Amino acid sequence: MSDLKTTAQMSKNASFMTALLDDKTKTKALEAVAEALLNNKEKIFEANKQDLDRSEAEGLEGPLLKRLRFDDHKLNDVVDGIRSLMNLEDPVGKIKLHTTLDDGLELYRVSCPIGVIGVIFESRPDALVQIATLCLKSGNAVFLKGGREAAMTNRVLFETIRDASVSNGLPEGWINLLESREEVNAMLSLSDYIDLIIPRGSNAFVQYIMQNTTIPVMGHADGVCHTYIDRYADEAKALKVVVDAKTQYVSVCNATETILIDKTLETTLMPKIIAALEDKGVKIHLESEITDWHHEYLDYEVSIKLTSSIDEAIDHINKYGSGHTDAIITEKTDRAEYFMNKVDSGSVLLNCSTRFADGFRYGFGAEVGISTSKLHARGPVGLEGLVSYKYKLYGDGHIVADYASGDKKFKHIRRDI
Amino acid sequence: MSDLKTTAQMSKNASFMTALLDDKTKTKALEAVAEALLNNKEKIFEANKQDLDRSEAEGLEGPLLKRLRFDDHKLNDVVDGIRSLMNLEDPVGKIKLHTTLDDGLELYRVSCPIGVIGVIFESRPDALVQIATLCLKSGNAVFLKGGREAAMTNRVLFETIRDASVSNGLPEGWINLLESREEVNAMLSLSDYIDLIIPRGSNAFVQYIMQNTTIPVMGHADGVCHTYIDRYADEAKALKVVVDAKTQYVSVCNATETILIDKTLETTLMPKIIAALEDKGVKIHLESEITDWHHEYLDYEVSIKLTSSIDEAIDHINKYGSGHTDAIITEKTDRAEYFMNKVDSGSVLLNCSTRFADGFRYGFGAEVGISTSKLHARGPVGLEGLVSYKYKLYGDGHIVADYASGDKKFKHIRRDI
Repeated sequence: MSDLKTTAQMSKNASFMTALLDDKTKTKALEAVAEALLNNKEKIFEANKQDLDRSEAEGLEGPLLKRLRFDDHKLNDVVDGIRSLMNLEDPVGKIKLHTTLDDGLELYRVSCPIGVIGVIFESRPDALVQIATLCLKSGNAVFLKGGREAAMTNRVLFETIRDASVSNGLPEGWINLLESREEVNAMLSLSDYIDLIIPRGSNAFVQYIMQNTTIPVMGHADGVCHTYIDRYADEAKALKVVVDAKTQYVSVCNATETILIDKTLETTLMPKIIAALEDKGVKIHLESEITDWHHEYLDYEVSIKLTSSIDEAIDHINKYGSGHTDAIITEKTDRAEYFMNKVDSGSVLLNCSTRFADGFRYGFGAEVGISTSKLHARGPVGLEGLVSYKYKLYGDGHIVADYASGDKKFKHIRRDI
Repeated sequence: MSDLKTTAQMSKNASFMTALLDDKTKTKALEAVAEALLNNKEKIFEANKQDLDRSEAEGLEGPLLKRLRFDDHKLNDVVDGIRSLMNLEDPVGKIKLHTTLDDGLELYRVSCPIGVIGVIFESRPDALVQIATLCLKSGNAVFLKGGREAAMTNRVLFETIRDASVSNGLPEGWINLLESREEVNAMLSLSDYIDLIIPRGSNAFVQYIMQNTTIPVMGHADGVCHTYIDRYADEAKALKVVVDAKTQYVSVCNATETILIDKTLETTLMPKIIAALEDKGVKIHLESEITDWHHEYLDYEVSIKLTSSIDEAIDHINKYGSGHTDAIITEKTDRAEYFMNKVDSGSVLLNCSTRFADGFRYGFGAEVGISTSKLHARGPVGLEGLVSYKYKLYGDGHIVADYASGDKKFKHIRRDI
């Protein structure tokens, strides 16, 4: 435990160095990481084979084994990802505000890294590469803890990234690997050194993290997403979108869990929706049998409720939803705007599938997670969510006493940036 | 307690309505509040007289009595403040990002209010007006808890603001007054309804709030601010700035508590600085007698340390400072940039007083507080720190399956905003 504290102190010091790196250095290091991953591929695949063999012997199921597999295809994907990250604008050092407070007294708000970020993620080894390189590009130091199943693969990936980046200008200690649950628990108490924790995983796991640390946590506990079919919905769009939102991938946070349908559609569109979903193997839970509207199935099951008005639908979503992603299907733009403004969620959608709420689909490159918090970053979080800002004030001997006495007055001239 | 929960639920519902208000309605309500304050001035001054009489009888000291006083001068100040707030741009509904994901699939990031904010502030009654009107302008509902000394004044101010705003388009329940410590404690557990708590006050008080709620807290516990006098400092500027930074107002968070001086100035500038400070009645604590560098005097006392290098000064600040506000005095711009980039604080200053770090002086109008967190808002926090954002995605029957299968490809065209 005291070892981890020392490591965290070193990582904090490293973060003061990574904050100073220019984009050229970071780009060079990212290219070195991409090349090292390609050069080390045999070693990576060998480690991954050991993880796969062990996990299969332990009875891990097919879809999870598929996520654990790291092959040529996955390697090319992460290398492509690194190269597109290299082409994105450096999120650090951007001037967000410039005000002349008085003659010779210039204020700037400038973006800067957050510091040291702890990310706990699921069994996909490609997640490690994505998160590490997002942190590198945004100038943050990072603690990584992956799934137990991927332990061998993660270690090789970590060592590859660490060695390639540190040989190319990144400071020692900027990247760290945690390999046990005990280390995660120890990390939760290191609020002097760790600035942000991003947990990805089950609802219970994220809740556990949130309740056991005073370090800010970014992420989401659950995803109870809704699709509301308004009385002015186009029938064909409603059917197509709702089937996609529920069934395109059921085990993810942005899949629709509750469908709200306007009462006027009870005998017309609703039976068709039920038939289309049952056709895909979805079990329907009607209002009469539901006791908990705040339920995330993550499976081929869905709750359906009839609503009398758009306000009833909005109130239901704001009461039972998780502020993640909610959609309306309607042809009336004023009703769409009303719904999208009043529903208090990170993503509000018109006539499209809740499954779109994702950093890649939103065009952010990779994402570190999806946030349901309304502070800092909300919705899918990419590079921009990994930076903070600081104020820089340049004077020339200016003192407050001159303004307090009235001898001088502030000009507060907002400058174009 | 259950009463407060009901009030908080109502306030949450009110916040869904305030999120929809247009700037015209908010401006009209703010003008009505300003007029009502002027019209009710006798009632306000009478309540304030009772607070002053009671506090004086209880032995409250002169400077605190002065802060408690609410007279014509303070009234005109808050009314001026409301009118300048009316002229600021509406922070809600601003488009921050627009990307065409594909034909007919348009993504917007739009600013929106945070929701319900709980603010706990000190004895100045004018703070109540500033905070309430900042929340109104930013579309947030608010719980206000002021100092016990100002109880009568706060109640009249609260009723005046509530009545004038609710008669002019604000929903019932958008503004609430808490009047006891028990209510504050009850509020800390209402994480389903309250989105953010902003505590202002002593270090111990802010720490108490942070440790007793899972609701996000914005603010700062302490302000251990530094002024570093580099070997390339201009002597006259150093003397002038350091005296202002320490003595212009000693009991506030942005006053300098530690002066770092380059060793080469030990026998030249340092004695002059000590003499100038002693002349103002400042007690000097030299390195040999200091055991705790993380100490906030809030008084006519200062710690002084000699440093051998700019890096030693930066390391000291990052280790013992509170990430609030730190200044360098130097004539070398490269050293200034190095210091300002590497010091991990909300405000980093060149050749000017740490006392400038304040929302009014930075030109934000009023401030709700100063944040030392690196998430969400950092430094002095005005209207912009009181808004979040949401993603709005407009489609026309778009489904994810078409992109997962490869039938369609994302275009991700970033649009000018």
